[in-house]
Amino acid sequence: MIRLAILLSGRGSNFAAIHDAISAGKLEAEIVAVISNRPDAGGIARSLELGYAAHVVDHKAFANRAAHEAEVLRLLRDANPDFVVLAGYMRLLSASFIEAYRNRITNIHPSLLPSFPGVDAQAQAIAHGVKVSGCTVHFVDEGLDAGPIIVQRAVPVLDGDDESSLSARILEQEHGAYVEALQKLSGRRYTIDGRRVLFS
Amino acid sequence: MIRLAILLSGRGSNFAAIHDAISAGKLEAEIVAVISNRPDAGGIARSLELGYAAHVVDHKAFANRAAHEAEVLRLLRDANPDFVVLAGYMRLLSASFIEAYRNRITNIHPSLLPSFPGVDAQAQAIAHGVKVSGCTVHFVDEGLDAGPIIVQRAVPVLDGDDESSLSARILEQEHGAYVEALQKLSGRRYTIDGRRVLFS
Repeated sequence: MIRLAILLSGRGSNFAAIHDAISAGKLEAEIVAVISNRPDAGGIARSLELGYAAHVVDHKAFANRAAHEAEVLRLLRDANPDFVVLAGYMRLLSASFIEAYRNRITNIHPSLLPSFPGVDAQAQAIAHGVKVSGCTVHFVDEGLDAGPIIVQRAVPVLDGDDESSLSARILEQEHGAYVEALQKLSGRRYTIDGRRVLFS
Repeated sequence: MIRLAILLSGRGSNFAAIHDAISAGKLEAEIVAVISNRPDAGGIARSLELGYAAHVVDHKAFANRAAHEAEVLRLLRDANPDFVVLAGYMRLLSASFIEAYRNRITNIHPSLLPSFPGVDAQAQAIAHGVKVSGCTVHFVDEGLDAGPIIVQRAVPVLDGDDESSLSARILEQEHGAYVEALQKLSGRRYTIDGRRVLFS
């Protein structure tokens, strides 16, 4: 049973997918904290309904990034998660935050990395004219969407697609991909060899 | 019925796949020339057996790249192809060659571009730790494996993979992907909008 802390900024559809997988007995995990940097995040309201320990750490209420992050880290220390699961968390993490949870922070990105890192990945994919895109669950390191890859899923890009239709198709796969990645991590039998995450 | 000129340097497994698709009535195309820069290319022996117009234009027999390319271009003018199909052709094309057949030269690359352009794409994919790779059929422009994309197919990368096993899995998809791309082009109903190749 792995302990997960969820960081989010919005409605947290990936958080909801992870909750559902745990409830359905498909994921051996426990959500030990849900933290949002936005008081109005739909994910916080949902996590309160579900009875999780939900925390708003409003970045606007802190003097600077370091002070905000110190409070998030304090909550994480109390919650003692095995993994910090970014689920639409719209804040950059400092190097010291990443170091504190080295190879224990997960993120999901709506492209097949290393293609299209950064913002507007789906629009980048459309503009580049790829015929296959997808999503990537990866560990977070100091690079931009650059850490070791845990799971990827591909989706077709259709001629009629725009950013919106492609985003919707990718999002459908994101939920399953994130649950699959956490399932694999929950087995705790993996090694990180260079950039490769290998399961045994 | 589109006219194809094949350029190759080796055994030409993609050439063989294209030939087979035409023979089986799956591709409305005619191979009007096969050109190799290597006299010992297996693809040349095969094309002679099959009765195609096969030409060796040995780059070592020419004073420089421009002279070699001029002879290839002369053969292409005689053959009058709609598309110049690179099938394991290990020579760079000059800007003037590309301009002469703008958006009519096709290539296949063993990765999901724009990830892993250049040599050793499969080894790059293994080292990067991606979980999905594949192949890309694209038009050739002046960039490195950078032209507009016609078809892509994805394959899984498995934990036990090395460059060799991944290359074999991708190659299986290359043959179908190249035939599919030429089928789509044979319909002649496509537009190139920025980088996007759109079929109607």
